[in-house]
This record gives sequence, structure tokens and C-alpha cells, in this order.
Amino acid sequence: MFKVKVLTIGKCKEAWLVEALAEYEKRLKGTLSLEWSLAKNDAQLLDWLEQEPFYILLDPKGEQLASEDLSGKLIRFFTQQGSRLVFAIGGAEGFPPQASKRASYILSLSKLTFTHQITRLILVEQLYRSLEIEKGSNYHK
Amino acid sequence: MFKVKVLTIGKCKEAWLVEALAEYEKRLKGTLSLEWSLAKNDAQLLDWLEQEPFYILLDPKGEQLASEDLSGKLIRFFTQQGSRLVFAIGGAEGFPPQASKRASYILSLSKLTFTHQITRLILVEQLYRSLEIEKGSNYHK
Repeated sequence: MFKVKVLTIGKCKEAWLVEALAEYEKRLKGTLSLEWSLAKNDAQLLDWLEQEPFYILLDPKGEQLASEDLSGKLIRFFTQQGSRLVFAIGGAEGFPPQASKRASYILSLSKLTFTHQITRLILVEQLYRSLEIEKGSNYHK
Repeated sequence: MFKVKVLTIGKCKEAWLVEALAEYEKRLKGTLSLEWSLAKNDAQLLDWLEQEPFYILLDPKGEQLASEDLSGKLIRFFTQQGSRLVFAIGGAEGFPPQASKRASYILSLSKLTFTHQITRLILVEQLYRSLEIEKGSNYHK
């Protein structure tokens, strides 16, 4: 059983996002459990990150990977980290240098700017996709 | 008033996607109208594309742009094309060479593979974002 904690800012008020995330969480049930920690502001998010020895930042300045490569990387990280990973999604301006400097890995989803909501959805779908790639299922083809 | 036609494959059966797209279409009302043409299969999608003199493919092999640059490019395309643009989203294997060769522009959203549903959502959000960037609003900051 994998565990993923996602640290991010804001509320999940959009009904469509709640539904979309629930759909992927249902598919991940028994394999990966997700915990969302929603910070009130940047300062709180940074406080939380300081307590994490290992975390992956989602930031446009990070590395871009194809889904197959992301899958391989995440599986290695899960193995190294006792099946538990922490992700952080920053605000519109990205992360301050101290958070980037301490990050274990910085992942970029795209050169495009996405909303927080869409970023959360992409992250969850890529987690699901990564595990399906590892299993060799037909989901990713 | 801008007009965008999106040619893609499949149905829109997920309730969350219907809701999310409706949210952006509401925001775009009066500025941009969206028309979705859902093909039954690749062959039909290719047939439709052959009838289009100018179309933009969404394909991982395309060019990646930051949202600001995408905005500038889309506004130029709208100006050249009488405010009307056609986009095409391919299947899991992308487009056959004849569709790519005839494409007016090939845009990549990411190195990652996304689902059709998420691709549709990203496209609509980027259309909205492009117009907000052009307007100079606070949406994109």
C-alpha cells in the first residue's frame, strides 16, 4: 500500500473537482491512499514543508518527464521512502528559493500555467497512470 | 466573438467533465463560443480534418509554449483566420503522419500523457487563460 500526502494551498470548493478526485481515489483504493493537506497561505505551506525530510515540488521550473519515465522515477522514490511520498503544489508565483533548495525533486507538468484545481487533477491521474504502467495494464498505451 | 471548434474522439460521459467544461463555457460566454465535434473513431476524425484548411493539432510531438506565448500565438491565429479556429485532439497513439503533415500548427501541452478528458479541460482552460492574458486581467498572474 502506497501513501501520498499532497500539501497545497486553498480549498476544494469546485464540485467537478471533488467528483473527479473521488473517481481516481476510488480507482486507487487498496493500492494508494491519498491525503490532502490544504494550507491557508504560503507561509503555512512553507512551515509544513520544513517538517518534511523528503518532498517533491510541482513547479514549472522543474524537470519534465514522459509518463513512462515518471512512473519509473516514482516507483524508485516509493521504494527508497518506505512507500510514502509527499508532494507540494505551490501558489501562482511558484515556490520561494528556500523551498526549492530543500526539495528532493522538482517536477514540471508543463510549460503552461495551470490552475491549482487542474494541477491537482493531473497529479492524481499521473499517480494512477504510474501504477498502471508499473503493472503493465492497458490503461496507458 | 471568437469561435472554436474542437474535433476529438469519444463521448463526454463523465459528469465531472461536463460540469467543468460548462463552468469555463459560462465564463467564455459572449467572448468565445465552443463547438465540440465528437468522432466515433480515428477514421472519422481524419475525414473531418481533411475538410479543414486550417487546424491546430494537440500532440505530444508538438511545440510547448508558456501560457503567455500561447496567448499571443492564438490571438495572431484568430486575427489571421477571421476569429475562427479548429483544434483536434487525437487518440492514444496521436495522429497518423498525413494529419500531422497538413496541420497548421502542432501544440504539445506536456511531455506527460493525459486522458482525453483532462486534455479537453486543459484546452478550454488555456483558451480562457489566453483571452484573460490578452485582456490584462488578474486571472493569470
